[in-house]
Amino acid sequence: MQLGLVGLGKMGGNMAERIRRAGHEVVGFDRSSPKRDVDSLEKLVQALDAPRVVWVMVPSGDPTRSVVRELGGLLSAGDIVVDGGNSKWTDDQLHAQELGAKGIGYLDCGVSGGVWGLQNGYALMVGGDKDHVATVQPIFDALKPPAQTDESGQELPAAGFVHAGKAGAGHFSKMIHNGIEYAMMQAYGEGYELLEATDLVDDVPGVIASWTQGTVIRSWLLDLLVRALDEDPQLDRIRGYAEDSGEGRWTVEAAIEHAVPMPAIAASLFARFVSRQDDSPTMKAVAALRNQFGGHAVRAVAAQEAERPA
Amino acid sequence: MQLGLVGLGKMGGNMAERIRRAGHEVVGFDRSSPKRDVDSLEKLVQALDAPRVVWVMVPSGDPTRSVVRELGGLLSAGDIVVDGGNSKWTDDQLHAQELGAKGIGYLDCGVSGGVWGLQNGYALMVGGDKDHVATVQPIFDALKPPAQTDESGQELPAAGFVHAGKAGAGHFSKMIHNGIEYAMMQAYGEGYELLEATDLVDDVPGVIASWTQGTVIRSWLLDLLVRALDEDPQLDRIRGYAEDSGEGRWTVEAAIEHAVPMPAIAASLFARFVSRQDDSPTMKAVAALRNQFGGHAVRAVAAQEAERPA
Amino acid sequence: MQLGLVGLGKMGGNMAERIRRAGHEVVGFDRSSPKRDVDSLEKLVQALDAPRVVWVMVPSGDPTRSVVRELGGLLSAGDIVVDGGNSKWTDDQLHAQELGAKGIGYLDCGVSGGVWGLQNGYALMVGGDKDHVATVQPIFDALKPPAQTDESGQELPAAGFVHAGKAGAGHFSKMIHNGIEYAMMQAYGEGYELLEATDLVDDVPGVIASWTQGTVIRSWLLDLLVRALDEDPQLDRIRGYAEDSGEGRWTVEAAIEHAVPMPAIAASLFARFVSRQDDSPTMKAVAALRNQFGGHAVRAVAAQEAERPA
Amino acid sequence: MQLGLVGLGKMGGNMAERIRRAGHEVVGFDRSSPKRDVDSLEKLVQALDAPRVVWVMVPSGDPTRSVVRELGGLLSAGDIVVDGGNSKWTDDQLHAQELGAKGIGYLDCGVSGGVWGLQNGYALMVGGDKDHVATVQPIFDALKPPAQTDESGQELPAAGFVHAGKAGAGHFSKMIHNGIEYAMMQAYGEGYELLEATDLVDDVPGVIASWTQGTVIRSWLLDLLVRALDEDPQLDRIRGYAEDSGEGRWTVEAAIEHAVPMPAIAASLFARFVSRQDDSPTMKAVAALRNQFGGHAVRAVAAQEAERPA
Repeated sequence: MQLGLVGLGKMGGNMAERIRRAGHEVVGFDRSSPKRDVDSLEKLVQALDAPRVVWVMVPSGDPTRSVVRELGGLLSAGDIVVDGGNSKWTDDQLHAQELGAKGIGYLDCGVSGGVWGLQNGYALMVGGDKDHVATVQPIFDALKPPAQTDESGQELPAAGFVHAGKAGAGHFSKMIHNGIEYAMMQAYGEGYELLEATDLVDDVPGVIASWTQGTVIRSWLLDLLVRALDEDPQLDRIRGYAEDSGEGRWTVEAAIEHAVPMPAIAASLFARFVSRQDDSPTMKAVAALRNQFGGHAVRAVAAQEAERPA
Repeated sequence: MQLGLVGLGKMGGNMAERIRRAGHEVVGFDRSSPKRDVDSLEKLVQALDAPRVVWVMVPSGDPTRSVVRELGGLLSAGDIVVDGGNSKWTDDQLHAQELGAKGIGYLDCGVSGGVWGLQNGYALMVGGDKDHVATVQPIFDALKPPAQTDESGQELPAAGFVHAGKAGAGHFSKMIHNGIEYAMMQAYGEGYELLEATDLVDDVPGVIASWTQGTVIRSWLLDLLVRALDEDPQLDRIRGYAEDSGEGRWTVEAAIEHAVPMPAIAASLFARFVSRQDDSPTMKAVAALRNQFGGHAVRAVAAQEAERPA
Repeated sequence: MQLGLVGLGKMGGNMAERIRRAGHEVVGFDRSSPKRDVDSLEKLVQALDAPRVVWVMVPSGDPTRSVVRELGGLLSAGDIVVDGGNSKWTDDQLHAQELGAKGIGYLDCGVSGGVWGLQNGYALMVGGDKDHVATVQPIFDALKPPAQTDESGQELPAAGFVHAGKAGAGHFSKMIHNGIEYAMMQAYGEGYELLEATDLVDDVPGVIASWTQGTVIRSWLLDLLVRALDEDPQLDRIRGYAEDSGEGRWTVEAAIEHAVPMPAIAASLFARFVSRQDDSPTMKAVAALRNQFGGHAVRAVAAQEAERPA
Repeated sequence: MQLGLVGLGKMGGNMAERIRRAGHEVVGFDRSSPKRDVDSLEKLVQALDAPRVVWVMVPSGDPTRSVVRELGGLLSAGDIVVDGGNSKWTDDQLHAQELGAKGIGYLDCGVSGGVWGLQNGYALMVGGDKDHVATVQPIFDALKPPAQTDESGQELPAAGFVHAGKAGAGHFSKMIHNGIEYAMMQAYGEGYELLEATDLVDDVPGVIASWTQGTVIRSWLLDLLVRALDEDPQLDRIRGYAEDSGEGRWTVEAAIEHAVPMPAIAASLFARFVSRQDDSPTMKAVAALRNQFGGHAVRAVAAQEAERPA
């Protein structure tokens, strides 16, 4: 089938490639990429036969909102917009309503796969109407990973794709996926740190590599940690500094909204916040209190700076 | 080679089976199992040719300590004892010292594999002397999982076995493995609960199943969660009640000893503690304080009990 | 001075009383209270001389928004509205803007004091313009606690009142105050539970009472815990069930928005969520995973129910 | 009465002073302090009339154990040793047993008061036999704070002293007190950090000072935070670096032993651990995983170092 694709960056470009390999026609637009087939949204829409499907793969927030709004003015009833970015589910609910008022379909599609997706396929979590999902299914099938068999050789149930629910359900599911990812990364990190801290263990990368088979904690993330330790056995070249993409925050916010206790994922989010602080106002206050009460010496800022290698 | 095996329960029995399938001779002793080959530790030792290897697979704590002590009186210099149970690393250090004084070797071996190990192999984390590891290696090779290939077809580096370090390192590594397991289970659990809490998502088991391919959070545990939801889609038949086996506690204790921050694993441990409480003294105090300060009504015990289905 | 007061419930009624005791005139309106002086907002406004000050003391959210909107239609330029409820700071920003467009002043005032405020005074955190604060200052002075001296007899710096900043700053400050309250209550609760858990300590209420003097953890909350234990030494009559008023949630959400790590307050919020659950979906998933992997028995729902006293 | 006091440091010296002011005779020994009255433990014991009471006020762990052991050899049946340091309760159990075998009494006494104790009195939590407590009571009475009245003028129940239970109960209670202190400090710290993070609030020290009257979170720690902010309004001169004295660790360990969930106190302990790390191995692993999966750039160690002011 034919697909319009807006956004040809690291993710969008690879996805276009995988969709084309499956035999579909992709008309790509990007503000600046030399890979683009057309140089405006108008031309993208003109280049597609109705009913059109346009997949938006641009940064979440204002960029996505702006593209969706513009598409709303260019597309016709019966066309479908798919937001494959990392939008918040509340944006999806607005977009579904706005486009729906014009008879334009809207699907939100959470996409996981990272730099590995081109080769292995992308996991897709979709929200929206059943009919719209059915229309776009050939594209979803091109993107998703191939069916696999489990350890005993049995074919696994269909995986890597789900029609999760109504508008927003796709991004909501992907958001939770990311929240889980935070806590899994944190769990491996905490275990790694304790292995490094003991002098019982001589071969930390060896222990972690050993876990990749037979254990209950084996996972793709664990395989990736083994790769990282292969390249840099003590992670000497990497600062313990971690950004967060927004989806971890939304996960905890959604948990709070629904009164869902979420201690491990929240702890993992907070650990990322801490990792980016030069100094902690919280711990300044704690140090000040210890000093006021117990006469415990504080570390003066100047003295501490002086201790650091220049 | 020849192996003495003490303990033929769920784990030990399956391990004996897997070792025999690999062509080794196993002489098994158990206090009560009808599968036992000999009916006393003395006879076990007599049935083996020196230098002997005796693998202990009994509950950690007093039972293991008692068997190891008894073996110390029965074995001779040059023999080796392997503790394959879930002992604390501090026990290993004592056992290595006690047996070493008699010229008897000691290895601690953390074993992961659960009910799946017989079929898939067991992951093994070993602590102790290099020479002793070399002697027992044929048994380790029989137990560990077969070599595998990654997604791109390349053979993965040796996994499922590691000589982690000195005495105690095997159980220490296995202990951390379990701590990570706690936090991974908790992470999936928290994500599952939030999926259940939203009305956006219609197909919670479908979302979770979709994650098993292509995503960064795919893992064996996730596959097991899919199985569990296959059998009981809303987990209606299961209470949210989780024991802990001790290793999670030791992990957090070791973290505290080494001043390693471990918020996600500790949160997961505490969640298990909470899951086993009928009522929470902490929250009784919180409720009492809210009542004292703000006049917020408390739930009286009697009234609450009355609300429950009789 | 003269004050219009909307809302004569538990808080509002006591505040009216304290303001009148200070010699001010209060015209009170409430939808239903027999204590009301007028029976409509219109009459309240008519009963006041311009420039008027109307203090709104109704539940946050829709009730407050509705009263403020209605007052916007009834008041005149130069009048001032004070929201003394528990509104979210984002509501304040809207209200300040809406009323400001009509020349009506707006102050948000976080109020702490609970059932003790009538006697001891209310702590007030105010956001808005300096001039409006100055106008309402006599009322603030009537409500706030009297100046005190510290342990050494020195007069303490002015306390119990602050002009915190621009519109929203009052409720934002009060919100953080409540977040801190959550964690302090949780801290005392956790300590109480551990005291109850050990068999070393014979006199738990005695230990807690002993802390109220000389220690670094003495506080009003601790005094209240002593009172609660006086009335019910093992808190046998209270369920460990704690509501949350919204402000704890907003505190954690604001922390997330500002990338502020907030592990202790978030943990305290989550503990309240847990306290209200009959069963935990998270722990159901954990139990299911333990069963799938290790063959650990799960507690069936039916069996567990049967164990409870009917 | 007459008291032997071992250890005349910051705490011991002030306590000697307070006991003397109450009219008791103190014979002080210290390894090095010029304030000492005798220059050996032997002379201390000789200088006291039987039955003797010797209060030990030296660092916990080996120093205390060594003094108690030595006293066991010097004292006679009917004498009493009081350990007023920060010993772990398990040490107390051993000491009570060892001394008890010789007919020597043993009391463990957790002491709180910091640099303020000389002036305000010390809070005392005591474990041991009732008879021994009665013998030492005059000293306890000299040290503890004077009786106080509450806000309404009523005399408060006896506070600042408790006979908590059997041997170890005093230090166990003091240990929990310290764990609570960690979480209270953390709670105020988190609130302070969020106040600093918002641009709504212009006067952060003012907000915190306002909380010291009328609010539910007022406490001595809050008074001390006001003092700290008076001296350094943005805590610019203090690093966010906090040691931990051991008692916070023991509190969490004891909670784990008793299966008591302790999320807020544990989070506060971990925050102190983090505050002392130059870089976090956990977060290195997280950063490495984000890079491996998503191609997210990591911060190289060299680049980061270069960003710091030399």
